[in-house]
Order: sequence, then structure tokens, then C-alpha cells
Amino acid sequence: MTKNKKVNAAILIIGNEILSGRTQDTNTSTIALWLNSIGVKVVEVRVIPDIEKTIIDTLNQLRKVNDYVFTTGGIGPTHDDITAKSISKAFSIDYEIHKEAFKILEAYYKPGEFNEGRQKMVWMPKDAKLILNPTSGAPGFNVENVFCLPGVPSILKSMLGGLKNEIVGGQPILSHTISLRTVESEIAESLTNVQNKNKDIEIGSYPFFQAGKLGVSIVLRSENQSKIDVCNSQIIDFVNKKKIEIVDR
Amino acid sequence: MTKNKKVNAAILIIGNEILSGRTQDTNTSTIALWLNSIGVKVVEVRVIPDIEKTIIDTLNQLRKVNDYVFTTGGIGPTHDDITAKSISKAFSIDYEIHKEAFKILEAYYKPGEFNEGRQKMVWMPKDAKLILNPTSGAPGFNVENVFCLPGVPSILKSMLGGLKNEIVGGQPILSHTISLRTVESEIAESLTNVQNKNKDIEIGSYPFFQAGKLGVSIVLRSENQSKIDVCNSQIIDFVNKKKIEIVDR
Repeated sequence: MTKNKKVNAAILIIGNEILSGRTQDTNTSTIALWLNSIGVKVVEVRVIPDIEKTIIDTLNQLRKVNDYVFTTGGIGPTHDDITAKSISKAFSIDYEIHKEAFKILEAYYKPGEFNEGRQKMVWMPKDAKLILNPTSGAPGFNVENVFCLPGVPSILKSMLGGLKNEIVGGQPILSHTISLRTVESEIAESLTNVQNKNKDIEIGSYPFFQAGKLGVSIVLRSENQSKIDVCNSQIIDFVNKKKIEIVDR
Repeated sequence: MTKNKKVNAAILIIGNEILSGRTQDTNTSTIALWLNSIGVKVVEVRVIPDIEKTIIDTLNQLRKVNDYVFTTGGIGPTHDDITAKSISKAFSIDYEIHKEAFKILEAYYKPGEFNEGRQKMVWMPKDAKLILNPTSGAPGFNVENVFCLPGVPSILKSMLGGLKNEIVGGQPILSHTISLRTVESEIAESLTNVQNKNKDIEIGSYPFFQAGKLGVSIVLRSENQSKIDVCNSQIIDFVNKKKIEIVDR
């Protein structure tokens, strides 16, 4: 992959707790911001239940149409952690004890503590590449373009840094935000004009409500800083003409 | 649909701001908890970009295999709000000014304020049923089994109540949580045994870290309270035998 190629990723969140509404997913944002910084754009996120067939089918769809797939959840020691087994089946690879992972966890726990429950965490697709876990020992793993991470946000976060050399991104996706004291409908027409003049910039408009006041954030995204700058000055132009207060730029 | 039928829903989050990581989605949890309470189970969530073809294709997939689909985002006045047009195309229904929505917004705004930008919000699939918006005027809409809601969490929340009579759920999905001062690997084997004895209960195990202490929440989910009770007492049994502290039950 060259630096000019667009590099895409999908995130596959595996977990009934997100679908039930009990837990709010925060991993999407963590992974997406990190991927942006290394030139990978997240183009799809799916949240699915802890059901083997669903995991296999969804993964096989996503891994074929994206440069990378990141899964979260389901790699712990309990009965509902079925990600590693499902991924093995998706790739038709044997599901077995990973010797390197076994050694890591054997050394991590005190003598006698590396029990059957914990040993489940070293069962993985044969020859998977480990993703080291500086927080709690149990590693994630990587097979081809699929990277399997845990669901606990703090642990997931601590594991991303170690992945950097495994991911080949394109140009980093740059963004610039202009926050205005206005409402969307006051700027909609002018913003459409700017978008029409700058077709290859992604311009997003997001209303916000902060400290009792309404506002709109305009977000410009592109791999090209000078294109962002041109677009930005066109926006500042109409904002000034309309005498709209700029909260932040 | 009878009260015994399982009723499923998918949530389709439309918005580049979630995929870029800039904004953390909270609508999934809001919608899922509300749907649970009226007997509808969320079985899939997808987050997709503001791209017409992607919206059309994904919606057409989801609406055919789920009883209900809820979309969030993309129904505001700016150029990147393309949900209503895309849904019209997905259903092959004319995209036109919705007279009832026009009247609502004309009355909502002060004279002269109902400008072109705001008028975009009354363009909808022909004959769509409106979803009233008590917070900020602009309604959502419903076509067949698809319900289109805004992306702003507080506005979305305020619109759910008015939808209750439109959704026919099955039996409410009940849940019970037992929080323990332990780690997953200490209870994994016992919990597997309980799951094997109670195949039709969904048992989830979720580690947490609160006030400096580790713990595990076990969540039991079913439409049947007495099955939850049986499962609960089997868990309490092994927890007591293992002398594990119960934080909350």
C-alpha cells in the first residue's frame, strides 16, 4: 500500500451488553481516532451479539471488503467469550492452545493461579500473531487483516500503541473544526455552496448545546491541508458577512 | 404480532461524525433500553457514512430481516443531511414537501424565519407518518417498519415517548444483575455450568473497575422472570460456596 492509497477499516463490536443498551460503546471512538492519526479511515461499524454464526458471517463479509477489521470483545475467560473460536472457524484455522500466549500468562499469574478459566484465554487460531496487553496480561491476536481486541476500554486503549507497526495507513486524515454561535438553518445554504465548490472535502455540520447556548460545529476533513485551508477561508468569509460569532476555530 | 413472538430491531446510525471518532454514539443505548422495555430486542447496530448508496443498500438489507429499523441522524437542514432523500429512494417513494410537516414548522418559527434551509426539513418520503418532536419542532418520520429519528441525543430522547403506540413489542425482556467482588476467571467454570443448565437464559459476564476495585457483573436476560429467578439462585449458591463477596444483587 502506498501513502496515496485510501486505507479503510471496519470495526466489529461483539457483545450483547452493547445491544441491550446496558453498556455504552466507547471503543469505536478510541479506535477511529487512533486509526485516523495513522491514515486509516473507519467506513463501517457493526455491533453484533455473542452468536457464533453471526460473528463468522459478519467477519467474513467485513474482512473481504476492508483493508483492516478490528474486533472488540469476547476474548475473556467466560462462557460468553466466543470470539477466538469464531474467528478460527471464519478462517478455517485450527482453534488450539497458543504456546506463546500460554507462556505469557503462565508467567503473569502467581503459581497455581493460572487455572482452567484463565487457560481459555490462550486458545486462539493456530499461528495467530499476538497483540500484547500491557494492562492485564491476556493478549489479543491478529490473523491476516483482522485484529482482535478486548472489550474493556482501558485495556483496549493500552494495546493500540503496540499495533502501530502492524498497520500500514495512507495519508493521515486531517480535520479542522470551526464552531459558530448560530443554528444550522442559518448557514445551510452558504455551506452547501462551499461544499459544491470543494467536492473532495468532507464537510460535516453538527449542532451542539453547551453551557445553555446553541451552536454549530463545522468539521472539514481531508488528507490535504491546503484544500482544508481554502475551504476554511470560504467559510470564514460567509460567516463574517452574516456577522455570526465564531466561538472557536 | 402476538405477545409471545420475539420482536427484533436494528439500529442504523447515519453519520460521518461517529465513524471519525469525533462524536461518541449514545443513541444506541437510549433506543435499546427503551425498546427492551416494550419487548423489542436490538439484534444489530450499524454505523455508516453520509453516502446515499450506502444508506439505501444498508437500509434495504436491514428492513427486510428485522421487524423494525430505527435510523438516527441526517434529517437536519444542511447539505450532509441526506437521510430523508435516501429513504425515499430505498422505498422508491417520491421525495416531496410533506404538507403536515410544513404546517408544523411554519407555525413553530416566527414569521419570516421559516427559510429555505429549514424548509429542507419538510422534504420527506410521500405520505410518511410523522414522528412528533416536542423539543425543536422538526419531526422525524416513519415509512412501513422504518423509523427515522434525529442524531442529537436530547431531541431523539424526547421523541421516543410519542412512538410507543406505533411499536408492537413481544414480552418485555427482563434482566437481573448480580455484581460480585471477584475476577471473571474465578467464576468462569461455575458460570458455564449454570449456563449449560439454563440454555434459554442469556447470561453475560462483564468485568468492571469501580472506585479502585475490580469486580464482575453477571447479567441474566430472559422474557421469563421465574427462569431468571432459578438461574439467579444457582449463581448465588456457587458464589456463597466460593465465599465471594456480593456487591449488589
